[in-house]
Amino acid sequence: MIIVLKPHSTPEQIDHILGRIQELGLKPHLSRGEHRTIIGVIGDENKLRTEPLQAIEGVEQVLPILKPFKLAGREMHPQDSVVTVGRVRIGGGSLVMIAGPCAVESAEVLDEIAGRVKAAGANLLRGGAFKPRTSPYSFQGLGEEGLKILRDTGAKHQLPVVTEVMDPRQVPLVERYADMFQIGARNMQNFDLLKEVGQARKPVLLKRGMSATVKDMLMSAEYILAEGNPDVVLCERGVRSFEDSTRNMLDLSAVPNVKGQSHLPIIVDPSHATGRPDLIPAMAYAAVAAGADGVHIEVHSCPEKALSDGPQALLPNRYAEVLTQIRRLAEVLGKTIAGT
Amino acid sequence: MIIVLKPHSTPEQIDHILGRIQELGLKPHLSRGEHRTIIGVIGDENKLRTEPLQAIEGVEQVLPILKPFKLAGREMHPQDSVVTVGRVRIGGGSLVMIAGPCAVESAEVLDEIAGRVKAAGANLLRGGAFKPRTSPYSFQGLGEEGLKILRDTGAKHQLPVVTEVMDPRQVPLVERYADMFQIGARNMQNFDLLKEVGQARKPVLLKRGMSATVKDMLMSAEYILAEGNPDVVLCERGVRSFEDSTRNMLDLSAVPNVKGQSHLPIIVDPSHATGRPDLIPAMAYAAVAAGADGVHIEVHSCPEKALSDGPQALLPNRYAEVLTQIRRLAEVLGKTIAGT
Amino acid sequence: MIIVLKPHSTPEQIDHILGRIQELGLKPHLSRGEHRTIIGVIGDENKLRTEPLQAIEGVEQVLPILKPFKLAGREMHPQDSVVTVGRVRIGGGSLVMIAGPCAVESAEVLDEIAGRVKAAGANLLRGGAFKPRTSPYSFQGLGEEGLKILRDTGAKHQLPVVTEVMDPRQVPLVERYADMFQIGARNMQNFDLLKEVGQARKPVLLKRGMSATVKDMLMSAEYILAEGNPDVVLCERGVRSFEDSTRNMLDLSAVPNVKGQSHLPIIVDPSHATGRPDLIPAMAYAAVAAGADGVHIEVHSCPEKALSDGPQALLPNRYAEVLTQIRRLAEVLGKTIAGT
Amino acid sequence: MIIVLKPHSTPEQIDHILGRIQELGLKPHLSRGEHRTIIGVIGDENKLRTEPLQAIEGVEQVLPILKPFKLAGREMHPQDSVVTVGRVRIGGGSLVMIAGPCAVESAEVLDEIAGRVKAAGANLLRGGAFKPRTSPYSFQGLGEEGLKILRDTGAKHQLPVVTEVMDPRQVPLVERYADMFQIGARNMQNFDLLKEVGQARKPVLLKRGMSATVKDMLMSAEYILAEGNPDVVLCERGVRSFEDSTRNMLDLSAVPNVKGQSHLPIIVDPSHATGRPDLIPAMAYAAVAAGADGVHIEVHSCPEKALSDGPQALLPNRYAEVLTQIRRLAEVLGKTIAGT
Repeated sequence: MIIVLKPHSTPEQIDHILGRIQELGLKPHLSRGEHRTIIGVIGDENKLRTEPLQAIEGVEQVLPILKPFKLAGREMHPQDSVVTVGRVRIGGGSLVMIAGPCAVESAEVLDEIAGRVKAAGANLLRGGAFKPRTSPYSFQGLGEEGLKILRDTGAKHQLPVVTEVMDPRQVPLVERYADMFQIGARNMQNFDLLKEVGQARKPVLLKRGMSATVKDMLMSAEYILAEGNPDVVLCERGVRSFEDSTRNMLDLSAVPNVKGQSHLPIIVDPSHATGRPDLIPAMAYAAVAAGADGVHIEVHSCPEKALSDGPQALLPNRYAEVLTQIRRLAEVLGKTIAGT
Repeated sequence: MIIVLKPHSTPEQIDHILGRIQELGLKPHLSRGEHRTIIGVIGDENKLRTEPLQAIEGVEQVLPILKPFKLAGREMHPQDSVVTVGRVRIGGGSLVMIAGPCAVESAEVLDEIAGRVKAAGANLLRGGAFKPRTSPYSFQGLGEEGLKILRDTGAKHQLPVVTEVMDPRQVPLVERYADMFQIGARNMQNFDLLKEVGQARKPVLLKRGMSATVKDMLMSAEYILAEGNPDVVLCERGVRSFEDSTRNMLDLSAVPNVKGQSHLPIIVDPSHATGRPDLIPAMAYAAVAAGADGVHIEVHSCPEKALSDGPQALLPNRYAEVLTQIRRLAEVLGKTIAGT
Repeated sequence: MIIVLKPHSTPEQIDHILGRIQELGLKPHLSRGEHRTIIGVIGDENKLRTEPLQAIEGVEQVLPILKPFKLAGREMHPQDSVVTVGRVRIGGGSLVMIAGPCAVESAEVLDEIAGRVKAAGANLLRGGAFKPRTSPYSFQGLGEEGLKILRDTGAKHQLPVVTEVMDPRQVPLVERYADMFQIGARNMQNFDLLKEVGQARKPVLLKRGMSATVKDMLMSAEYILAEGNPDVVLCERGVRSFEDSTRNMLDLSAVPNVKGQSHLPIIVDPSHATGRPDLIPAMAYAAVAAGADGVHIEVHSCPEKALSDGPQALLPNRYAEVLTQIRRLAEVLGKTIAGT
Repeated sequence: MIIVLKPHSTPEQIDHILGRIQELGLKPHLSRGEHRTIIGVIGDENKLRTEPLQAIEGVEQVLPILKPFKLAGREMHPQDSVVTVGRVRIGGGSLVMIAGPCAVESAEVLDEIAGRVKAAGANLLRGGAFKPRTSPYSFQGLGEEGLKILRDTGAKHQLPVVTEVMDPRQVPLVERYADMFQIGARNMQNFDLLKEVGQARKPVLLKRGMSATVKDMLMSAEYILAEGNPDVVLCERGVRSFEDSTRNMLDLSAVPNVKGQSHLPIIVDPSHATGRPDLIPAMAYAAVAAGADGVHIEVHSCPEKALSDGPQALLPNRYAEVLTQIRRLAEVLGKTIAGT
């Protein structure tokens, strides 16, 4: 349920309404816009229906919510959200350029890559310390050692860092080292993990599940938001399909589709989507043209030696060319790459 | 890597080989068949390649493994596995009939349903206490209270019980109450959860992910087996597709497909696959004819009042008719419903 | 629109109603059941709504149709249709067993295969003379020469024959030689071809398109029925999916799904669905258990020499074993293989 | 097989080689590039392998072809093809902007729409006279009357016209009126139709089938090229998927994927892909950024009154805005809209 307040409602009126909602065992969610203050109410709408909310002073309108996502939806939060990671703003015309290797392999390799992508214009460094691998016999990541390398390398190059968390028990550990959590595609509906990062204080990059609809993805964001963490950035990274010449099928229509329904920023990962370096540049340009708030690209200085997913990484030189072209397209679209 | 031993290899020879494998930092996995003893070796095959294993006494043959699943595959374990839950044997000609409501709602409702499905011939009771729901605002299950109700109801009706575990931290709790863990479709690639139930002492029902290939499913089983838990039963429950008149698309070819590659039992869940009670009976018969080791059907005495997934449940009367027909088909196929 | 007549409506009353419908520029479709006569009306329903049809003598009820398929649907034709090909009845408890090579290659090879499948219990011979091939450089079939061989071989072994027609211009030619037309998956929505076989006098085997929903398939059947040819048998043959270990994904739930909505017989083709001889037998059994009215299996005496799709064919010996098991399952289900 | 000729091979040498190929019953295909002349050979490669072609004067190299598409592939034809329709060049930096209603409904409506899209910058007019409709009861198009209206309207507004052909028997009729044939998604593997337009003298717009892989699409183009018609433009228009909030899933990665393998131009149709006017603009921009050679958009001055697919059409005003933005993006990419 959404409660729209009158233009000049007073703090006392707002407090009164919030109190009534809490008495009923429901959670209010306050959102102050430029022109209007709105209170979203989470919980059993039936409890509220019997209450004469509309009669309370300061209330202009009480609206039931049709969309199943309340906090992620635009109804309650019409203006675009901007999520800040370190000093990098994502959304609202600011593009994030996330780059780095699939997995953190060693301090030396990561340092080399970080230096190159920073020089090219990337503003967020990625690297996996805990790796979800289809096979139990594949390289599973360096764990805490990898987190330390990632943090130190990010600090050296003045790049905030994002890394995947796979287990609710790892959340405090990862939070100590990373500037942003990544929830991978395989865990998009790992609801206990979503709740755990929802209670953490760092932003979350939530990747679309391999067979998740856009609505499913927004519902998963809702899990995080409902726990109190407002800083969610969505990521389209391709879904499974019958097409066998690409690793997944990149669904770029998800970008305007999400933007029409939700205030959350959404970025695109053409690396995992295509699995093919020859297709990544074109899909990165298309993502920006489609309105994405950033692009996530795997970069490795020696893809054939990478311990994980090497074949889908771009070389640093190629990455720099791609960023040059993205900058030109961004200009046409009235956007800038954040922090650069 | 697979080491095939000679027909009359001695215990000393076997111990010697196992010792050598462990010295190299690898895990041996012994499998004694009627005619041959086989040792599977997990870990970096390269370490072994440099070792003159074939020269060791008692060794007949050393085979590299092509299939990426070693423990789940038939190469190392050619005979069908039989998994025992309580007194119910699953596999090897014994069919399991799992029935019960989607979620445990109350002791009364579960008691009523359990009595009806037991009378119809079901041999395993299901019911969710922790529910993975797309929306954070949907009923999330009764938690430990639900587990107690499930255990007590199962005990009263002499039915072992299976229930879903969603979070690695819940594993010890669920293990105290349930006879079998269920890993749901959304968690098929929640690798930390797989490792955790792999270290537990109860059998695991592993459901296929919504866009998992048969190979992905076997790789997830491999995670559990590699931790030391040999009792994994797979479950085909439909995958996502463009067909919009059924909830998912049931891939019955997965049954012979798995059986050709793996020794693990596989059952079928036509309830989640179709989401339509009018299609469940035909799909249950087809599953048994396709060679499945059992069928998992949601049954509710009052589907329209169920708190979760009611519309896809069969009424107890209809369930009894379905089991009567399954029994007749099982006879033609030389199989029996376990424990009845 | 459906007009349900009163139990004892007279021929004069019926003629009168048919006349009124035709005056309005609409097509009536008469269906006499045991208890009721029903008139389906095809065309713009709005024209009829303004007419006081319910006032006409003999009319019991006038129902708008919600389902978009009028002739294929059960509403207007509640009892199961039985389609007769030669002396073989398909539907209503009679199973058709279609077998033969993918393509007609030579009289000798076809004679050998026909003799073997006839002996095994097949009752309809298949073989392609016009082949839809993904590549223009693959074998495209023998054309009319292939049709002659097929007809003569069928006659010798007393097996009616079915063969694919790909082009509306070929319909008269194929009709001269074949007992049943096959419309392949790639042509399921080749509407001009559907109209052409709809005007022919031979039954049609309509295969599901690779990404057609069940509703799409019924709409394509509707095209044939609307031209006046009532003898349509549907065929589930798998759809495209992300699973890469089978050629297509067999959607057996389509069988009860179709049967719930339509009176038309539906058979299953596990050969094209799986593309794997090791999976064909299990899927054939599952198809019969699911309620299919027959099974379509490719059989070749020398698959590795077949000019088209050899790898997915069963050997004649294996086919005979499969039919033995199908017969046992059919008995449990109260069905028989037609004409044997 | 590809025969690469030496830089200064003479006409006599070339004629000699062509003759030898024809003697063997094979079809040669000559392609003169700036630096090299290449002869592609279609037919059984084995016949050629036994011939000492490499010994013939003027031959530099004889290469077997691995890719199954010979004429559509880049190996034999490395430079981008440019297809000319009327005076509009498609490919090689020239973008085509196809616009118009789904179906030709009347001369007045089409005239209105054509005037508006021409003014906005469209350079090719579309409109269906023969409509492939899922239901036989839906509007099927005006037939020849629609073709006449389309031709006359195109002539009046100096726009060449493209329209769908569905039946091989319609090809001569459509060829009389249209400047370009369209083969719809449902007919992408209607091989007899492909052969028929392959023998015609007008360019062909070939749309991707709903579950066709990129390779399937190129193989269908190969059918047309192999008949002698070199003017094929491909069109990505979305494929079927589980996502239910868009009509299809637009696979923009098909654009660079095709460009890497084939010299043929490829355009994108965001109207049929998304079915949602709110997503069409973003997908049109993304298509151009991805490297597409044009965009195909349905425009209708009164979508809610359109007889076919109205809801997915843009209004003329919105279309004009979209073209303004496309022009700005094209400039960054070094491309221009043809003929404007």
